[in-house]
Amino acid sequence: MKAWQFTGTNNPLTLNEVAEPSAGPGQVVVSVKAAGVCHSDVTAIDDAGWMPLFPELPRTMGHENAGVITEVGAGMEHWKVGDRVGLSPVMKDGDALGYGKWDGGFGPQLLATDDNLVKLPDEVSFELGAMATDAGLTAYHAIMAVGGAKPGMKVGVIGLGGLGYIGARVAALSGAEVYGAEVNPETQKLAGEIGLAGVAESITAFRDKNLDLIVDYAGFGTTTSAALETLAEFGTLVQVGMGRLEATINTYPLIINQLSIKGSKSGTKEDLENLMPS
Amino acid sequence: MKAWQFTGTNNPLTLNEVAEPSAGPGQVVVSVKAAGVCHSDVTAIDDAGWMPLFPELPRTMGHENAGVITEVGAGMEHWKVGDRVGLSPVMKDGDALGYGKWDGGFGPQLLATDDNLVKLPDEVSFELGAMATDAGLTAYHAIMAVGGAKPGMKVGVIGLGGLGYIGARVAALSGAEVYGAEVNPETQKLAGEIGLAGVAESITAFRDKNLDLIVDYAGFGTTTSAALETLAEFGTLVQVGMGRLEATINTYPLIINQLSIKGSKSGTKEDLENLMPS
Repeated sequence: MKAWQFTGTNNPLTLNEVAEPSAGPGQVVVSVKAAGVCHSDVTAIDDAGWMPLFPELPRTMGHENAGVITEVGAGMEHWKVGDRVGLSPVMKDGDALGYGKWDGGFGPQLLATDDNLVKLPDEVSFELGAMATDAGLTAYHAIMAVGGAKPGMKVGVIGLGGLGYIGARVAALSGAEVYGAEVNPETQKLAGEIGLAGVAESITAFRDKNLDLIVDYAGFGTTTSAALETLAEFGTLVQVGMGRLEATINTYPLIINQLSIKGSKSGTKEDLENLMPS
Repeated sequence: MKAWQFTGTNNPLTLNEVAEPSAGPGQVVVSVKAAGVCHSDVTAIDDAGWMPLFPELPRTMGHENAGVITEVGAGMEHWKVGDRVGLSPVMKDGDALGYGKWDGGFGPQLLATDDNLVKLPDEVSFELGAMATDAGLTAYHAIMAVGGAKPGMKVGVIGLGGLGYIGARVAALSGAEVYGAEVNPETQKLAGEIGLAGVAESITAFRDKNLDLIVDYAGFGTTTSAALETLAEFGTLVQVGMGRLEATINTYPLIINQLSIKGSKSGTKEDLENLMPS
């Protein structure tokens, strides 16, 4: 079979002939039906700083995958050939599909383990399933697992782009009262379909709402600062977005209002399971 | 009796004749044996922004107090005349001794409730007891209650001044492995008596120690930033010091290493109890 492989910094991905995978103990082979290209794939190609994540080259990239199981290895009999699956990218040892020693989804087949496998319900397309494994997972993890959004909680979401749209929608569906901050007037128009209680250019417009949680999916520094000026006492800011990596913050509200800031990155297999319709 | 009272912004405290307090239900009268002057008393006198904390004037100031119970009100029979006590300043309703409707310790006697009263062991002087109610409480709360320092944990303390000295010592006594950052070479010499595993000008000197917790008792912005560059994955920075209220931080380690930053202010009666020798 042929797969698109990473060969080193600044090299375009190369379409190489590679061996078909065979399921070892604790593994399954997945026929890839949908695979997303992530911005971090682009960064990994452009930035030599990512090379430590690729100890063996060439490596088939692609960590946003969904597909169908075609072979079941020893000890994996709880899965069967034909099962539709989404693949949570990160392994328990910190490695991930498309990195380290694991090939990703930019090829017809890949090997996966129980660290990755989540059942994909029939009503979820492979394309949406693949999206859920990274954009969905990251958005969900930040607002639900790290932020602890729950029914009745007053929650702010900064940035209604890819991650923010999903995060705000998940929180609204979970019963939280969600306020959005978004600079793009066109994107603001999505407030209704997301189910927002309000939308404005800056989250500071909702200072009087006593927000217990704000998730910053934009991350432009000014957004971090605005969130701290807005949160209620003992509130939490979850920082996900990396629009600009420098933030100048006022530590006065942080200390006086006993706020928390939590960095959130990626997510877990449990997050992916929770994202699926039950 | 006479008490030193706050009468309004920019007025020096005034020595006024005031009525002797009498213990109502749920109250005791404490004869004040030691009362600390806090920097926040000075700020309250200088800064009109603090006036909302003084709805009734004049008010006897002083929230760092220790003394002896001289009268026991109804329902307070678990205390007795002659008991030595330290007074945790904050009431459950958010009010505090020396603020709002409660007189403080800059007079011979004050009223206190079970929100305040902590038994002062005979071996603890009134002076040390009074110190424990604010400097002790605040330092302890940050590193133990908010930071969760525990035996074997690798902990960094930034600033070995009043609060930092106490915080570092408490953590070391609790069995944590404590590293200190202090710019003053004279203060660095206290490392031995505190029980530090190491001391340096900047906490970044201990990047290779994989610190799980750093408490910034200095708060000069650069210290916040240095802490984030130093913490191990999933580490926590507790921000207490307000040396300079603006911090420019790199959000990259915050997100990638999934760090937390927690603001910490003052402390609780339980913290004061835990500070006492048992």
